[in-house]
Amino acid sequence: MNPPGLDHLLTCLRFPSVSTDSTRRTDVRACAEWLLSKVREMGLTGELHETPGHPVLVAQNKRIAGRRTVLLYAHYDVQPAEPLGEWKSPAFEPTIHDGRIFCRGATDNKGQLMAHMQGLAETLEQHADVPVNLTLLFEGEEEIGSPNLKPFLEQHRELLKCDVVAISDTGMVAPGVGTFTYGLRGIACMEAKIYGPAIDLHSGIFGGAIANPVTAIARLTATLHDAEGRVMIDGFYDGVRPIADWERKAWAELGDGDAEMLALTGSPALFGEPGYTERERRWARPTAEVNGIGGGYQGEGSKTVIGREAFVKLSFRLVPDQHPALVLQHAAAHLHAHLPKGVRLEVTPGHTGMPYLMDPHSVLGTAAQRALKKVFGEKTALIREGGSIPIVQAFKDVLNADTLLLGLALPDCQAHAPNENFPIENFVAGVRLNQALLAELA
Amino acid sequence: MNPPGLDHLLTCLRFPSVSTDSTRRTDVRACAEWLLSKVREMGLTGELHETPGHPVLVAQNKRIAGRRTVLLYAHYDVQPAEPLGEWKSPAFEPTIHDGRIFCRGATDNKGQLMAHMQGLAETLEQHADVPVNLTLLFEGEEEIGSPNLKPFLEQHRELLKCDVVAISDTGMVAPGVGTFTYGLRGIACMEAKIYGPAIDLHSGIFGGAIANPVTAIARLTATLHDAEGRVMIDGFYDGVRPIADWERKAWAELGDGDAEMLALTGSPALFGEPGYTERERRWARPTAEVNGIGGGYQGEGSKTVIGREAFVKLSFRLVPDQHPALVLQHAAAHLHAHLPKGVRLEVTPGHTGMPYLMDPHSVLGTAAQRALKKVFGEKTALIREGGSIPIVQAFKDVLNADTLLLGLALPDCQAHAPNENFPIENFVAGVRLNQALLAELA
Repeated sequence: MNPPGLDHLLTCLRFPSVSTDSTRRTDVRACAEWLLSKVREMGLTGELHETPGHPVLVAQNKRIAGRRTVLLYAHYDVQPAEPLGEWKSPAFEPTIHDGRIFCRGATDNKGQLMAHMQGLAETLEQHADVPVNLTLLFEGEEEIGSPNLKPFLEQHRELLKCDVVAISDTGMVAPGVGTFTYGLRGIACMEAKIYGPAIDLHSGIFGGAIANPVTAIARLTATLHDAEGRVMIDGFYDGVRPIADWERKAWAELGDGDAEMLALTGSPALFGEPGYTERERRWARPTAEVNGIGGGYQGEGSKTVIGREAFVKLSFRLVPDQHPALVLQHAAAHLHAHLPKGVRLEVTPGHTGMPYLMDPHSVLGTAAQRALKKVFGEKTALIREGGSIPIVQAFKDVLNADTLLLGLALPDCQAHAPNENFPIENFVAGVRLNQALLAELA
Repeated sequence: MNPPGLDHLLTCLRFPSVSTDSTRRTDVRACAEWLLSKVREMGLTGELHETPGHPVLVAQNKRIAGRRTVLLYAHYDVQPAEPLGEWKSPAFEPTIHDGRIFCRGATDNKGQLMAHMQGLAETLEQHADVPVNLTLLFEGEEEIGSPNLKPFLEQHRELLKCDVVAISDTGMVAPGVGTFTYGLRGIACMEAKIYGPAIDLHSGIFGGAIANPVTAIARLTATLHDAEGRVMIDGFYDGVRPIADWERKAWAELGDGDAEMLALTGSPALFGEPGYTERERRWARPTAEVNGIGGGYQGEGSKTVIGREAFVKLSFRLVPDQHPALVLQHAAAHLHAHLPKGVRLEVTPGHTGMPYLMDPHSVLGTAAQRALKKVFGEKTALIREGGSIPIVQAFKDVLNADTLLLGLALPDCQAHAPNENFPIENFVAGVRLNQALLAELA
């Protein structure tokens, strides 16, 4: 039998709320409206707030003076599901198999969001209230970098005022091991397009006399790294904070991650910046990643053309104290300086997010770790993560609140990839974690 | 009013006979069957011959001893029409505008094929025969490298025996200037695929610890050339024959081609191997061209993934005395030798064709030039071309026949590109050229 609340999660997953895809706009809104109906059914007061993009849901219980105020953040938007052909079950029809729910958004972030919802629903049903002043803040633009959330926080400082933020949108180091994440990488995205001839050309008739934009995009992209994986952009590593000794030690105690990384990724070998372990590379070192490249003929067989344009999509993962705007500036300068001859370049900056680091030994940090112990047992892993939740820095800047990151995703939950999934037992643990966390913070 | 035979050309163009696209198989055959009905209507005996791929049409008049035997070759297949969005009129619905017919295949090769058909139809109607023993050989696989035509020639040596081959599938240097092409570049195609993780991965969670196949394909592709455009594959230039002095002179007399090349291509600048004019680069120097590259996210906006695979489609244009098989061997060795760390490479060779060079001052060469003079006037351009017609070498090898290349395409006819077109006046000239050529060869 399904655990309580699971059916609601399945309903939530059926909304294809892909925030980056303008044709999914009404699906994103429908998901927000459905969530609004749920929080109201629980007895919270809630509203959808319009933004220039997708709506933000805010819900609250009654404010009682003297109680700690906790803001629980989550996002109801999801990544695109492409490539669709690689899904073993439909991307937007949740399918349960081997104790896991397979669906786009299952782990990132609807499974974790709905676990908190179920925890709250049960507490509210039993006690008619939760033990803190609670604010739910669910947004629909996390996967596109939350462009409208920081202005929203600024416009609603009073409404959203809180002592601490809690988010379940990170990972656990292993099944059953409570994991507290005290750092995140930042992000800076960018697209570069190279233009050559005005039209696609016959590569026999014209080949040899003009520059090929597809060749040029490859040559330009190849200048970003050295053969060992170091980023070759001037100024890129400026301000990168060294990894603290206690962190190196704590992460080493988690055991050798190499075999797990190879198994998880299926890569033929590990590869990365010399001088660092794979965890250090992912959690505390910046990267320049090529997320997509394209140009010329993409179909079956061969077509002897010189394509008229080509693109590359880049994202930089950043660590303290790099600054996204500065990194984009350095990267654009690098691309223009290394542009091959005979073509034209256009660089478009994309979304950005600051890296984040808090002190895990603070009062609120230790309260969160007590909640993790209640649910998962004595041993709690203290980690950073390689992903980005840009809004965490915004909570710090605008609301002056630290964020507790209590993730429920396993390393093989395939976030952002085909066959994304979420274990039902993690959903159940999440329900309990919500209750333990609010009790410990109260 | 449309000139005689034009309606038949328009009908022929409506068949989307894309040979590389397996979903178009029945369209390719329908085009062949329609052509068969036309040659039979003219009074020739004709058959479709099955091959492992698309059918070959052979038609003949009555053999009369003592007459020269002329084989007229053309192809009824066409390139893919993608990208469809860039066509100003539907790719497979011929549209007449400014005296030109716009349609995929208009110039390459249906316009030229149907001009010869109309020339023959008129001669046969007036004289009940043509002045030579004529063989028509129309194939449906030219755009995929004619994989089945050479075996077909070998199996039908007797049937196809001839003194000379004539083909209209090349270009004119300018409107109204008769152009005799005595050399063609060869071709060798290849696809390289790089594989990394087993699935697409979240570039935040995993980025930094494993090699990215999209980065790797760019780095590998970038090793193919130096910054000036020379090909960096060991052994690639082995055997390349220097350009003869008379050729350099004859081509220089055609005038400076740079401005025309910039206007035709719309490129921001010319670019190519140092030490050669743009014509020399296109007609007599080999290239390594990147026809397509792809990997990772291709859609709107950004998606922070590490793609699991990436591809690059390459084609090499070759000149005497390079050998395609050897070039593919050198290229594969280069790719394996330069493969970035942490990924896996698969190289798939594609179709090939030998470069071709004949003596334009031979008996048959001068006969062809007389025919061009009859139609276009005194001045005939002697050129090579950058494109490839691999079958020309097969005619030499199997039938021991030279090929006369009497092209009717203008430089701006956009062969292989969107908005391919063919001037109606070239169609009319082609009808006359067919009649003049058979008379001169008789």
